[in-house]
Parts: sequence; structure tokens; C-alpha cells
Amino acid sequence: MIFPGFKNYRIVAACLIFNYKMHPSQEKLALVRTSMKERNIDAYIIPSSDPHLSEYIPEYWKIIPWLTGFTGSAATVIVTDNFAGLWTDSRYSLQAKIQIAGSGFELMKPIGLHPSDFMEWLSSAIPEETSIAFDGRLFSITHFRKLVSNLEGKKITYINDCDLISDLFVNRPAMPDSRAWDHPIEYSGKDRSLKIAQVRKQMEKQNIDYHLLTSPEDIMWLLNIRGNDLTYTPILISFALVGETQILFFVDENRFPAELATEFDRLGIVMLPYDECAGMISTLNDGSKILINPETTSVALFNSIPDRYLVIEDLSIPSLLKTIKNKTEIENIARVIVKDGIAITKHFYWIENNLGEVPMSERSLAIRLHEFRLQQSGYLGPSFATITAYNEHAALPHYSPSESTDLEIGESGIILIDSGGQYMGGTTDITRTIFIGSPSSQLKKDFTYVLKGHINLAQAKFPFGTRGYQLDMLARKTLWEHGLNYGHGTGHGVGYCLNVHEGPQSISPADNKMIIQPGMLISNEPAIYREGEYGIRIENLILCYEDEETEFGKFLKFDTLSLCYIDKALIDKSLLDQNEIRWLNTYHSEIYEKLSSFLNAEEKVWLREKTSEL
Amino acid sequence: MIFPGFKNYRIVAACLIFNYKMHPSQEKLALVRTSMKERNIDAYIIPSSDPHLSEYIPEYWKIIPWLTGFTGSAATVIVTDNFAGLWTDSRYSLQAKIQIAGSGFELMKPIGLHPSDFMEWLSSAIPEETSIAFDGRLFSITHFRKLVSNLEGKKITYINDCDLISDLFVNRPAMPDSRAWDHPIEYSGKDRSLKIAQVRKQMEKQNIDYHLLTSPEDIMWLLNIRGNDLTYTPILISFALVGETQILFFVDENRFPAELATEFDRLGIVMLPYDECAGMISTLNDGSKILINPETTSVALFNSIPDRYLVIEDLSIPSLLKTIKNKTEIENIARVIVKDGIAITKHFYWIENNLGEVPMSERSLAIRLHEFRLQQSGYLGPSFATITAYNEHAALPHYSPSESTDLEIGESGIILIDSGGQYMGGTTDITRTIFIGSPSSQLKKDFTYVLKGHINLAQAKFPFGTRGYQLDMLARKTLWEHGLNYGHGTGHGVGYCLNVHEGPQSISPADNKMIIQPGMLISNEPAIYREGEYGIRIENLILCYEDEETEFGKFLKFDTLSLCYIDKALIDKSLLDQNEIRWLNTYHSEIYEKLSSFLNAEEKVWLREKTSEL
Repeated sequence: MIFPGFKNYRIVAACLIFNYKMHPSQEKLALVRTSMKERNIDAYIIPSSDPHLSEYIPEYWKIIPWLTGFTGSAATVIVTDNFAGLWTDSRYSLQAKIQIAGSGFELMKPIGLHPSDFMEWLSSAIPEETSIAFDGRLFSITHFRKLVSNLEGKKITYINDCDLISDLFVNRPAMPDSRAWDHPIEYSGKDRSLKIAQVRKQMEKQNIDYHLLTSPEDIMWLLNIRGNDLTYTPILISFALVGETQILFFVDENRFPAELATEFDRLGIVMLPYDECAGMISTLNDGSKILINPETTSVALFNSIPDRYLVIEDLSIPSLLKTIKNKTEIENIARVIVKDGIAITKHFYWIENNLGEVPMSERSLAIRLHEFRLQQSGYLGPSFATITAYNEHAALPHYSPSESTDLEIGESGIILIDSGGQYMGGTTDITRTIFIGSPSSQLKKDFTYVLKGHINLAQAKFPFGTRGYQLDMLARKTLWEHGLNYGHGTGHGVGYCLNVHEGPQSISPADNKMIIQPGMLISNEPAIYREGEYGIRIENLILCYEDEETEFGKFLKFDTLSLCYIDKALIDKSLLDQNEIRWLNTYHSEIYEKLSSFLNAEEKVWLREKTSEL
Repeated sequence: MIFPGFKNYRIVAACLIFNYKMHPSQEKLALVRTSMKERNIDAYIIPSSDPHLSEYIPEYWKIIPWLTGFTGSAATVIVTDNFAGLWTDSRYSLQAKIQIAGSGFELMKPIGLHPSDFMEWLSSAIPEETSIAFDGRLFSITHFRKLVSNLEGKKITYINDCDLISDLFVNRPAMPDSRAWDHPIEYSGKDRSLKIAQVRKQMEKQNIDYHLLTSPEDIMWLLNIRGNDLTYTPILISFALVGETQILFFVDENRFPAELATEFDRLGIVMLPYDECAGMISTLNDGSKILINPETTSVALFNSIPDRYLVIEDLSIPSLLKTIKNKTEIENIARVIVKDGIAITKHFYWIENNLGEVPMSERSLAIRLHEFRLQQSGYLGPSFATITAYNEHAALPHYSPSESTDLEIGESGIILIDSGGQYMGGTTDITRTIFIGSPSSQLKKDFTYVLKGHINLAQAKFPFGTRGYQLDMLARKTLWEHGLNYGHGTGHGVGYCLNVHEGPQSISPADNKMIIQPGMLISNEPAIYREGEYGIRIENLILCYEDEETEFGKFLKFDTLSLCYIDKALIDKSLLDQNEIRWLNTYHSEIYEKLSSFLNAEEKVWLREKTSEL
């Protein structure tokens, strides 16, 4: 069927015929539309995901940047014969506007942080009996179900195995094929054979025959391996299917050193080509019970499971196990935190001592911080795109400077730096907000309220069984009392030499049922954002541990791990109570104690001042 | 099929034959088993509910008390040919043990507060291919689905329309048939025709043709009527089916005064016999969309909906509307709170001034409190069974004294009184804990920690959109810091001249998605229970209102309504901060101001002391 307003299509066609100078996206868009016409597709959806529904994806899957010019990490594109729109979230509004100007794609209004508003558009804009197509490898089962439920009653035909892009994507980057490397026992703390046995024991308990692992992070943890397929997460893009005696591991075996391949062989880990996962699933025994996570399993993979299998949908077993850090991991994290603390401290020292002399911009600071981390042993690279945000940019919670937005650091103002590193021995994530010049009293109040929230959560004591949503308000209470708030969660789980964002736990208002348990590593990052003015965020990593057992049950607490001073110049001491002042002074003296021996004489004197008693 | 161990059945049979003196329950049990045999039923389940799945049920539906002798409000009974068990929750353990001794029923171990542990027992104890029967009028759809999911894979045959009891229940109490009365506009604040229009508007928005109302409370609110069918809730047992132009109201029309019947007629409210609800549902137009709440709709009623209807499952529209109290209701509640405060205050004065002279027991105090409330105009009766608990009984959160447990009040100790009244103009619920003699320092600490939690929640300020689970920890934080906790939620919604427990909102750790909104009336009742020693609970009703709007959104607060002094003799002042002391002093002076003019001279002097500055 045809949409009203055939006009635009004709204009594009006319441009092609008469060879007007055209944005390269317009040509690609025209080709996509031709493909759609040939296949009777009314609407084609392109998400910004990969077949693992991962947060970070390889270049190969960056279809939206190729098609539209927009390089942000989260977006959805819809093409019909007379419409082409791009949805992204508010953090990318400015960047998207610049990047897709003239592309033939319209920037759609984002409602919240999640770019799934396209579903609402579809539900109001498309007529009944539309045929909607997409590449089923790039949609999770959960996401697809949500789409179907949004369009219920519209008699939609879904074509969910439709890849229109591969034929058009000239000079497409190759799929990553970095070398696999062993993540040895001194870092992993537990032999891969024991981890496999642990997963199988849980499968037996749940009466599961096969467990499909679609998140590379789960597989890396389980097999004690890592790779360099992505910029920010040291993984190998792969699938795995865990059975009672074998593990089918879908990844090119040539990427493995011989010793690893030999050990895998001994452990019944069979390496098969990456593309054969769907095919192998269909060969399992009839009546098998297979456990999948619908959030990370693609429609394509899900459809490969024959009807005669019983599908159990739940969180993956490795995701639940790896979120509890073991003793070795915890010891390594403590070491890595010191290294990371040294790098950040040296960076802030450098900023303060070179301001006004060396030109600085948001981007140059991010690069310099990376260089300070490179001086630390075991540093593998940043764990996410460093956020160095100056003044009003700091009011955008997920801002990351790009060429087109980079600001020079001036003589006064807020600098917010949110950064992290991947290390042998752990993953870090820390945010500090500092001020150049004299902060206003409103700014000091805001900073102090955020700090009170941070301290309140850091000092939490709570019974076993408590969920993150119960703790979230500890970080917000003071802000709320003053009519303030922030629009994101307070804490996310953190991986171990894996993704810096790791579920399933969180500390946020969302109704996440996961309880907070000893061994979980979580961020503590309350904030405040004043649009067009500035943003403040204070982030440390906190580790949950068991405190005491009383007649009312086990009680847990957090240990604050991250080591970097909190800018006292931004604190209004009169707003802190004695307990909060004590917490800050103790924290600061711990920082000096742990970091000072790694600093030079000038840095030491400076840090002594930064960490002196409030 | 037959269960292993046929023996017990033969013993009962033998008793019957040889006419041994037997507990009356044993005879009834034998008759139930005979009925089961005749119908090839392996297991028969009897819940303690009525066809409305209400919290309080009429005598007619009290099958378990008749069958087993156990009179507690929440229980489940299962009978097989060689087993008869009763599950109830921990608050009734002692009472159940006494009441069912010798009955042939075994008291099963409760796991938590909810007596649904019988499902676990079924899942482990019954073999495959068992036939399970129950009266489908007494099981909600949600409850039944849970049962089915618990027994998945066991090839169970469910007989869900099986009433074995009615034929056996000799001298069964009649179904209630109290007179209906008008709940006039000066109390309801909104004309019934407007409420009906409001519900229909919402139905139209959700594209709903029919809305089945199974909770009598919803119907009472919608039609501005009340009745006296239950002891604690002024309702008429009835169903209603709201359509576009008519409301089918399933209740005997002879119960209505002529003026009401005439008005109903005018408004298209058609009264039909109570039992015809299921039959009428099946006559609706083909393809109708019908909205039901699966928590309060019985299996029997659900099964009466033909397959050709589209069933939408959600909370009922009246339940969402009535939880937001209107201006008239709020004004009336304030008046009722004063009356209730006078009664409670006079009661505590009486206790203190008659201790050691007039004998007092838990039960006699409950009666006396009722008498004080009777002196207040518009009082209809208690809103739940009064909890007057002395010392170790106060450690049982849901204790209510019965003949077999009644304790005399001695020379020293804790008295916890949790009570409420139904009034024309509102429903109350308040708990105070007082002490006779000199409290220990541990007791004072415990009381003060509970008070801090109470004040912390009372003073909460939070953004629009906040859920109860985010606020719950405000009441617990101090307790947690000292390794203490309580095992129930902090607050429940409160009806308006309706059920004292009213959803859908709550303040508790459970993942209830309902947001707290202006106009919601909620209890604030943190506590501590030291098993075998004492319990402490401080409960006031709090009303949510809009405080201010900032650039970060609308912020809400609570107004504490209940009026009764908090026993200063139990407070360790050194544990309170200035803000908390200020709250208490302000609250106490408000109490004196509002109540003193209704007290006699002695009471006034006494209350002045009770509410003097800490």
C-alpha cells in the first residue's frame, strides 16, 4: 500500500535523474526506498543495535551513522515512502540536529531518555494493514513484543527477517576479529571449569537442558577470556550455548591462542563459526528446555528455536553470578582503584596548575586524562567515552564532547569530569565536579545537597533482601527537601574488566526486583542539572558487604572504593551535619594515605591541602 | 485415584460406626470426604474468602470456622482422603493450635504472613494426575492462576465449580440483607450521576464497553450508598456491571428505600437479583470489551464471560478514583479525626486514672474504647477488630485479643492500642503505645527510633511521580542503622466510610507501581516487635497534598491528621534532633488546641501535661 503524500519521493527521484548536488544520505535513502518498494514494505525500522543487543556495538553494525550521518549511540530510524525520521534521546538533540541537516531525515522530538518513542509515532501515523519490516537480528524479543503490543489491532504484517542494508552498505567496516586472550586466575579468581560447573548446577536446579548466552560479557566471564572487539569493553563478539556436557561457542577459533584452544577442547567447549548459532539451536533434542534472556535475545535467534522446545525466559545465570564479585576480584579492584585515583588526581593537579597557561578544551582534557591513565600498569583503555563538560554542557547528564560541540575552558566555571578505565583487575567509573574561580552561593548549596545525598547513600545500612529502589531516595532526600531532583538513577552495577554498566542490580526509582547483595559493585552518583547553567555530579563506586547479624536478620553496608578528593571550595559547610563532616574528613584522609606515596612532592603538598579537614 | 495411607480414613469411619465421642469437626470432615469420594475428587480446597474476595466476609461464608473450629480471618483448608490440613499466618498460630485441637485437622507451618503456603504443600505432596476441586466463587482468577502455575507439569484436573459445603452446612447463617442507605452529598462531595459519568468517560478513553465491579466498596463509592452487611465496613454485598447507558446492579431491590430506588431508575441503574450476575454477563453483545480486576473477580464469574468477549484486566476505575479524596471528603475527615481524637484521649485518660483500681484486660479496654467512640456523633462502629495488646502480645503485629488469649493488665508494661472507627464522614485508624511503670532504656531507645521513622515519613517532601516503595525507607532508616526492622509495610491506603484498608497505593517495600498523589489518605505506622517481650507501633493517618512547583517539577508533602498525644515517658530525648523535637512539640500543641475544648477540666489539665514541650 501507499502512504499519502507521494511527492517527496518524486523529488528525490528527480534529484537522482537530474543529478542535483545532494547530501549522500539522500541517495542512500532513495535506494532503501527502492528496495522497500520491490518487497512491498510500507515501513522499514532500523535500530541502533547489534545482534547481542549490547550497549556498545562494533563499527560493522553502525548502520544509522552510515545512513543518516548521525553518530550518537542510541537512535531509531523509520523510513516510509514519504517519511524518514530519526529518534534519539535528549542528550543527543543538538548533535543530531547538526549531523542530519540536509540528509532527508527528520529529527523527531524525543520524549524521554529512551529512543523508543518511535512506537508512539507508528501507532498514530501508520494506517491499518501496513507491512512493517526490520532486520530480526537487531530487535530483542522484548522490544519486538512491545512494538506488537503498541500496534495491537492495526492488522500489521511484520517482516522480521529483512536486511535491506547489507546490499547497499558500500565499504562497510569488517566484523571485529581481535585476538582472544586468557583472563588468568590471578584476575578472575575462579577457574573456568568451576564457573562452568556452577552454571550447570544452577541449570540442573532449574531443570534447564540448554542455556543460550547472547551477551558477550556473560561468555567472557564464564570462560575467563577477553578480547578487543569493542572500544570500551574488552570482549569477543560471540554467542554460546551451554549444555549438560558441551558448550557450543560461536566464534572464529582462529582468534584463539593454541593453549586456550587446547584447554577448551579438554573442557568440551566446541568452537563453531559465529553465524551458525541459529542453525545449531534447531538441532537440539526434541522437548529440550532452553533458558534465554528475552532482553538480549534477538527475534532472529528466538525464531530459530523450534516450537517443540520449552523456552524459559529469565535473566541469564552468568549475569546473576558475575554481579557478585569474588575475593580475588575485590582485591584486584582495590588495587586498580588506587591506580585510577593516582591518574585522576594527577589530572586535576595538572588542570589547576596549568589553567590560563596551557589552552584547554573539553576534548583536550579527556585526552590528557587518558594519558595519565596510560602511565598506570594494566590500563587497557577508557571504559566509556569520557565526559568532560564545561558549564552549561555539564547540565546534559550524558554529554560527551564531539568536534562540533567542544568548548574551550575559560577563566571561571564548572568542569564536570565523568570517566573510567578498563584495567587488568577491574573497571572504574568516577565523576568529580570542580570549579574555577568563585562559585556562587546557589552553586555551593546545590553541590552540598548533592554531596549530602552521596554521603547518605554511602553510609546506608540495610537488611538483606533490600532492593535498589528502596535505597535510591537516600541520595535524593535532601534535594527533594529543597525542590530539586535529577532525572536518572542513582547507581548502576559495574562490571569487572567488562562493561562499565552491568546489571541486573541498580539503585534507582525503577521497580527493579533484584536485591542488593554482598559483593555487588555499584555506582553512587547523585546529581543536579540546571539547564543552560551548569551540572553537578559526584560519583564513587561502592561495594556491598555484610555488616552484622541481629535478631532482625543480616544487615549490609557499602564500602566506598573510589579515591579522589571532593572539591571543598564548592561545599557550604554550614549545610553539613557533624556526621557528614566526619565522613568527608575520614574519606579525605584515606585518599591521602593511599595515594600520596605515588605522587611527586608538589602534587603531594597540593593533595594534602585538597584533603585537609573541612 | 487414592492417596497412600488410607488408614486415617478408616479410623474416622470406625469412630462414626462405633459412636465414639468425637470432635464435631471430625464428623463434618468425614462427610466432606464421602462427598469427595462420590465425585472422584482427590483434594478439596477451601479458602477463607467470599465471592468478592473481600478482606472482611459475611458470616454466611465462614466455612472454615464451621468446619474446623478455627475463627481467624485468613486460612486455607485442604482435605484429601488421608490428610486434612489448615494453613493460616503466624499471627494466628497460637489461636489456631487451641481451636483445632482434636478436630482432625492438622495445623500446617506458616512461612510468612500470607496463608498461600498450601500451594507449596500441594506441589510437593500430591502425585501426578490428581483431581483438585474447589468452589470457583471463592477463588480469584489471580489466585487460581498462581495455583495452576505452582502445579505446572503435574497433569492436574481442576474441578472449579464444586461446592461440597452447602449441602452439609446445617444452620448456616443467612446471607446479609441489611437496609441500604443514601450517602448524601454533604458526605460524598460528588453526585452519583457525576461519578457515573466520570467512570464512563474513563471507560470510553480505554475503549471499554462494560466494566464489571466485584468489590462492594467500588459500588458503594460509585452509587453514594452504604449498608450494614459487614461488621467493620458499611457496605452492601453486591456486584455491578457498568455499561454505556445502564448499570446492572446485582442486589435485592427490596433493601432500598423508595426514594433511592426511584432515583436509580431515573439514572438507568437496574437492580437484579444478586445471583444473576454470571448469567447476565453472558448476554452482552458479541465482541464486547469488558474490564475486570483479576484480583477481585472469582473464577466462577470469569468463566461466565464467553470467549467472544475481549477481557481487559486491570485495577477497577472506581478504585483509582475513590482513592483520591475530594474536598468535601477531606473536610469531613478532619472533623471525624477530632471526634476520634476525643474518644481516644478520654480512653487513655481513663486508663491512667483507673489503673490498679478498676480491673482491666485487653478485651475490656477494647470495649471501653468503643464506648468512648459511641459518645461521638456519627460513629457507626469499629473499622476493624481493635488490637489492645499487653506486653508480649504487642509483639504480634496483627494480634487481636480473643477469649482464649485475653490478658489482665498488670502493674507495669507496654499497652499497644490499634483501633479505628467508621463515622459518617470518614474512617479512622490510629495506634498508640503507652507504658505503665518505668520503661527500660532499651524500650525507650526502641520507641524513639520508631518515632524518628514516623516523623521522617510525616515530614517527607517528594516529587510528583514518586511511588510508595521509594518513601518506605524513610520510616525504617533509623531502625536499620541500629540493626532493627519490622516485617510489614509502613502504610496502607484508608477508605472513606469504607474499608480501612484501601488500595491501590501503599508505602511498603513491595514493588507497587502506584504513585502517591494529592488527596490520598495513607497510614504511617512504623514499628518494632521483640518476640516474647513487647511491641511498639506509632500510627497516624497522613494526607498527601501539593506543596510547591519548582523548575524540577511538582513536589508533594503529607499532612498528619490523627490527633492523639505520643507518650513522652517513652522518648529518649537525647536521640532526637532539633527538627524532630520541633515536629513533636508542634504536633502536640495542635492536639491540645483542637481537642481541649471537648474535654472536662481534669482531662484538660492532664492533656496539657501530655502535650507539653519535650
